Amino acid sequence: MKANKIIETLKNYEAGKPIELVVREFGIAPEDVVKLASNENPKGTNPAVLKAIIDSAHKAHLYPDDSMYALKEALAKRYAVEPNEIIIGAGSDQVLDFIARAFLNEQSSVLMSQVTFAMYEIYAKQLGAKIIRTPSYQHRVDEFIEAYQLHHPKIVYICTPNNPTGDAISKADVLKIIEAVDEETLVVVDGAYMEYASAKDDRFSIAPKDLMIYPNVIYLGTFSKAYALGGMRIGYGIAPHALIQTLSKVRPPFNITTLSMVAAVEALKDQDFVHDSIALHSQEIERYEAFARDHGINYIDSYTNFITYILRDGQSSTQIANRLLEKGVIIRDLASYGMNALRITVGTPIQNDIFFRKYLEVAH
Amino acid sequence: MKANKIIETLKNYEAGKPIELVVREFGIAPEDVVKLASNENPKGTNPAVLKAIIDSAHKAHLYPDDSMYALKEALAKRYAVEPNEIIIGAGSDQVLDFIARAFLNEQSSVLMSQVTFAMYEIYAKQLGAKIIRTPSYQHRVDEFIEAYQLHHPKIVYICTPNNPTGDAISKADVLKIIEAVDEETLVVVDGAYMEYASAKDDRFSIAPKDLMIYPNVIYLGTFSKAYALGGMRIGYGIAPHALIQTLSKVRPPFNITTLSMVAAVEALKDQDFVHDSIALHSQEIERYEAFARDHGINYIDSYTNFITYILRDGQSSTQIANRLLEKGVIIRDLASYGMNALRITVGTPIQNDIFFRKYLEVAH
Repeated sequence: MKANKIIETLKNYEAGKPIELVVREFGIAPEDVVKLASNENPKGTNPAVLKAIIDSAHKAHLYPDDSMYALKEALAKRYAVEPNEIIIGAGSDQVLDFIARAFLNEQSSVLMSQVTFAMYEIYAKQLGAKIIRTPSYQHRVDEFIEAYQLHHPKIVYICTPNNPTGDAISKADVLKIIEAVDEETLVVVDGAYMEYASAKDDRFSIAPKDLMIYPNVIYLGTFSKAYALGGMRIGYGIAPHALIQTLSKVRPPFNITTLSMVAAVEALKDQDFVHDSIALHSQEIERYEAFARDHGINYIDSYTNFITYILRDGQSSTQIANRLLEKGVIIRDLASYGMNALRITVGTPIQNDIFFRKYLEVAH
Repeated sequence: MKANKIIETLKNYEAGKPIELVVREFGIAPEDVVKLASNENPKGTNPAVLKAIIDSAHKAHLYPDDSMYALKEALAKRYAVEPNEIIIGAGSDQVLDFIARAFLNEQSSVLMSQVTFAMYEIYAKQLGAKIIRTPSYQHRVDEFIEAYQLHHPKIVYICTPNNPTGDAISKADVLKIIEAVDEETLVVVDGAYMEYASAKDDRFSIAPKDLMIYPNVIYLGTFSKAYALGGMRIGYGIAPHALIQTLSKVRPPFNITTLSMVAAVEALKDQDFVHDSIALHSQEIERYEAFARDHGINYIDSYTNFITYILRDGQSSTQIANRLLEKGVIIRDLASYGMNALRITVGTPIQNDIFFRKYLEVAH
């Protein structure tokens, strides 16, 4: 039975290894496994959200409100947009899928930076689109504009702050790219880690509202990081209504769970939790920077909740990541992104202590 | 900004109206709304599953194990198959999406019965495939084989029991269709309501194992109905490993939530709950049959957790459904499926009492 030709060319997303796998494969007790691989919020689930989930858990048998009324109202209020300018996905990830399906085909190309979120490529390739990358892992305005003019891609992906590198591009530079692109090209501004960048440096802060004058720009946000709901699979796209309407054509019904909706609405109410998450992060990431300096490791200045260590020649990111894994510390090896680098989620103080100790044990 | 040509031709799934909408639009108190429109399990969430969700709710910030190890092990054990013969979707619905993406394109056609689950058409049309329907709403072997021989569709969808009509096709007849089809055609046997059919009549009972000798057949099941987890969005496909591997290429990472995984594993352990759900249903559906006979309404003999009333000429399903809605009773009008009929989820004894009373008030 022949599948579509494109299928055999596809590769799967390489997920961070789950704690359960390390427990099974290396016989390490779950409580001794430290997972710093998926940029989850080390503060854990927000207690107010936890309560809301528990209070609604008896509704697990009921389909969610597919109009997502309550969540769209809450997001609209928070971001000063209209509910009909919002689309909800199972993670902002799924909004990327809607975008690819609505706009890409075998004649399209898409533009992104050299090293960026893997799902842009994965979804674009499912539609048969050609992938074009700028030379730098950073989002450089000149490189984006040059590549745009050369290839006229259907979509330009701007991931700011960028995952898995942690760097960001300023709002002024994002606007320069948008202004250089004509309206037949969709610009995706993926702000999955924006809360961290906004707190660090105002020049890097982009709000959905800033982009609403452009009919061809969509802003993506997520509840997985600063809102600590990675396991609930919920994110959103914000754009002018006509664009949202187009994307809604490919949204499957009931694409988030009843409890995810409750959790997201509750999470939005508690901005103190977000601030506290960022405060904890800011304090702990300084330790990663100091550790790197003390041990001669290069790192990328991070605008996210993780830090990327760039290893020197003679060290192997894959070897170090594997050795750490055997010791129960899960981080992300960036070898498959073409970098001899490690991406480490900044964890709790105790998790970070363990990382520093084990890192020194394995990286000689 | 031009979207793909296919996009403008797409229509969206018509979801059952949520309780919240009736509350908002008609000012009816939530406790007075009776929703019998989405085939949710009237027993509510299984208490053992509820406890498992509550106990795991603090993990909402953690991504799920993307290998879905625990759930695949549990399903494999239950259905006597291998874990690598299983794919998990956000509802069996999402597995239908994987199937369409992997196998359909603008040159394909797909075959289904005249009236059947709406998502077959919706996903197939997203890929540009042509929709072919048999003349009858029932799955008739001769009609399927004739249409197959005429059109050589890439996919044949068999929904048994069938939604939204409630009838079923016997295992012997399903096998006849499968045997008539060559291996270049994928046969999807969608058993979303199979637990109800199996309990009613053994001849209509199909297990995934029964189909595993065919490389071109996939069985779909769900946790949304008999397992009472509609809000958690979790279902599965079971097929030979090669087919599962192909579909896995288009599965996005983390496509179910952390709590959905926990809930499904727990739900599988408690077969008593499933039996009790079916026992309650069997008792209550007899009341719907008696009510129909008493009031001269035709109905389709149901193998599901809902019943379909076929209205007589001069009555309008849309009018009756709207009038019931104004009284806080939500059922499904099948006018958009080309039937002057109503699909009613069999509810709790109290909900059913309310339905009978209100129905008589509006259907004169």
